[in-house]
Amino acid sequence: MPETTQNPVLIVGSLAYDDLEMPSGIFNNVVGGAATYSSISASLFCPVRLVGVVGNDFPEAVLSDLRRRGVDTAGVEHAEGKTFRWHGRYSADLSSRTTLDTQLNVFADFRPKIPDTFQNSPFVLLGNIHPALQLEVLAQIEKPKLVVADTMNFWIAGEPKLLGEVLNKIDLLVINDEEARELSGIHNLVKAAADIRKRGPKHLIIKRGEYGALFFDAAGVFFAPGYPLEDVMDPTGAGDSFAGGLVGYIACAQNLAHPTMRRAIYFGSALGSFCVEGIGPRRLLDITRAEVQKRMTAFMELVETGGLVDFP
Amino acid sequence: MPETTQNPVLIVGSLAYDDLEMPSGIFNNVVGGAATYSSISASLFCPVRLVGVVGNDFPEAVLSDLRRRGVDTAGVEHAEGKTFRWHGRYSADLSSRTTLDTQLNVFADFRPKIPDTFQNSPFVLLGNIHPALQLEVLAQIEKPKLVVADTMNFWIAGEPKLLGEVLNKIDLLVINDEEARELSGIHNLVKAAADIRKRGPKHLIIKRGEYGALFFDAAGVFFAPGYPLEDVMDPTGAGDSFAGGLVGYIACAQNLAHPTMRRAIYFGSALGSFCVEGIGPRRLLDITRAEVQKRMTAFMELVETGGLVDFP
Repeated sequence: MPETTQNPVLIVGSLAYDDLEMPSGIFNNVVGGAATYSSISASLFCPVRLVGVVGNDFPEAVLSDLRRRGVDTAGVEHAEGKTFRWHGRYSADLSSRTTLDTQLNVFADFRPKIPDTFQNSPFVLLGNIHPALQLEVLAQIEKPKLVVADTMNFWIAGEPKLLGEVLNKIDLLVINDEEARELSGIHNLVKAAADIRKRGPKHLIIKRGEYGALFFDAAGVFFAPGYPLEDVMDPTGAGDSFAGGLVGYIACAQNLAHPTMRRAIYFGSALGSFCVEGIGPRRLLDITRAEVQKRMTAFMELVETGGLVDFP
Repeated sequence: MPETTQNPVLIVGSLAYDDLEMPSGIFNNVVGGAATYSSISASLFCPVRLVGVVGNDFPEAVLSDLRRRGVDTAGVEHAEGKTFRWHGRYSADLSSRTTLDTQLNVFADFRPKIPDTFQNSPFVLLGNIHPALQLEVLAQIEKPKLVVADTMNFWIAGEPKLLGEVLNKIDLLVINDEEARELSGIHNLVKAAADIRKRGPKHLIIKRGEYGALFFDAAGVFFAPGYPLEDVMDPTGAGDSFAGGLVGYIACAQNLAHPTMRRAIYFGSALGSFCVEGIGPRRLLDITRAEVQKRMTAFMELVETGGLVDFP
C-alpha cells in the first residue's frame, strides 16, 4: 500500500493486549503496545521491520494484517505464555489515567534478537523498553543513519547509568515534558532541553500531550501544536503513533535537516490525532494516505500566520 | 512614543496593588491590575483611554508614566480610601497560584463613568469586572467597531443571566480553557467554542496559559503557541498583557478580518511573553517596539512549517 522509497525503519518495542476502562465504555483485549502503534503509523510512509515478542494468545490475524501493510514481522518472537497485558482506567475528561494492572508475561524475559536481514536498517526506533535492551539492539545493528529512542520516568529514576549510555548513542530522543524535567532535574523546558542535548542526542522532541510538541536541535527551536479534535475517544498509543509517523516520514525523506524535522513532527502529530479518534488502534488501521494529507492541510490552516511581523 | 494610526482603545478594569509571594522572593506593593497591564501593552500600538478607580495610596507617578505612554487617564477616578489589593502565592514552578487575600477597597463601589471624550472610542476592552458594570460601560458608549471582553469563573457561576447579556453585545470574548468549559458545560474545547459562539460573540479566544491560545471565528480555527522562555519570573498580568496587545494591534490594523486576528494573537502573545519576564509590569514597562518586533521574528521562526503537506 505505501508508495515508498525503499528505506526501511526498524521498530523495537512492545506488542500487547490492553484492557481499557474509558468514559465511553470498557474495552477488553484491545490489541496494543507501543511497537504496534508505531509500526502501523510508520507503515504509511515506509517499509517497517518489527521486533518484539508475543505469547500464544496473540492473534495471527493481527500480524498478517501488519504484513499486508508492509511490516516485516520476521522479528516478532512467539514465546510460550501470555502476551504483555496492561489494564488502565482513564479519567472522565481523558486527561489522566491510572494503571490498574500490568502483566509483563512473555515480555518479562524479552531479549530483542535482530534478524540478519534487519541488521542493515538505516532508521531505527527504540521503543520505551529497558535501556539495557535498547543497548543490545544497538549492538546488533550496522551504522544506522538515525536512531530515535523513547524512554520513561521508570528508567530515568531506576537506570540512569544505562540510560546515559543510550543517550550517548542516539540521534533523537522523544520524551514528554515531565520526563524531560525528571531527566534533567530542570523545570524550565528550554533549559532542560539544552541540558539533555549535552548528554548525547543532538535532536530532542519534548511532547506536551494534547498541547503539542517542542523540537530542539542546533538550528533552533520549533513548536507544533496538537490538532484540536471534536471527538477524542482514547489517548492510548497517541505518543507511539506520533513517533512512528515521525520516523516514517524521516525514513522517507532520507535526511535529518531541520526543515525535514519540522514536517516530520507535523506528520507525526497528524498520526497521533487519528490514533485518539478510535478505541485502541482501530482508527489508525482505517486511515489512508489521502486522509493524512487532508489532515495535514487542515493542520497548516490551523497554524498559518501570514508571516507578517511588522507593526500595522 | 507609539507611531500610531489615531484609533484609540478604551480599556475598563482594575488598577491594583499586588503582594506577590514568588519562588524568587516576596514582592509587596507591586503596581498591578488587569487594566494596568492591558493599557501598557496596548499603548505600544495605539492611544489608550483608561477607565478605573484608585485610592489615595496609588502613586501619581504611575499615572503620569502611563500618560507619557499615550494612555489618557482622564477616566481614572480617585476615590477616598485604599486601592484594590491582591495578595497571592505562586507554586515553586509558577504553574499555579493561591489567593491569600483580596481587599476590594475602593473597587467595591466602582461604577465606571466613561468621560464624554471617551464615548466615541471605536475599540473597547472590557476587563474582568462584574457583568453589570460591563453592561453599564456599553450603555455609555456610541457604536464601537469592536468590543472585546474578559470574564471569569466567579461571574460565570454567579451571574449567568447578566453575563449572557454581555455575551450578546460583544464581538470577541477572551477566556481561558477552564472558563470556556464552565461557561459551556462542555469539556471538549472545539465543541465548547461552537456553543459559546452561538451565545453572541462571533469571535472567541480560548487561552491555554503557557501553551498558547486557540481562536475561533466563522472562517475557522487558529492556534498560536506561547513563546518558550528560558526565564519566567512572574505570570501575573500575562493574560491582560495578551488582551492589551491583541486589541491594540486590532485598533491599529483597523479591521477584524481573520488574517488580522491571527497576527493580533501573535502580537498579544509576544506582549504576554515579555510580561512574565519581570516581577509585576517591570519588564513590560521597559520594552520597545523594536524588541516586540524581534520577538515576533523569533516567534515566526518557532512555528514556521515550510508549508509542505505532501508525503515525501
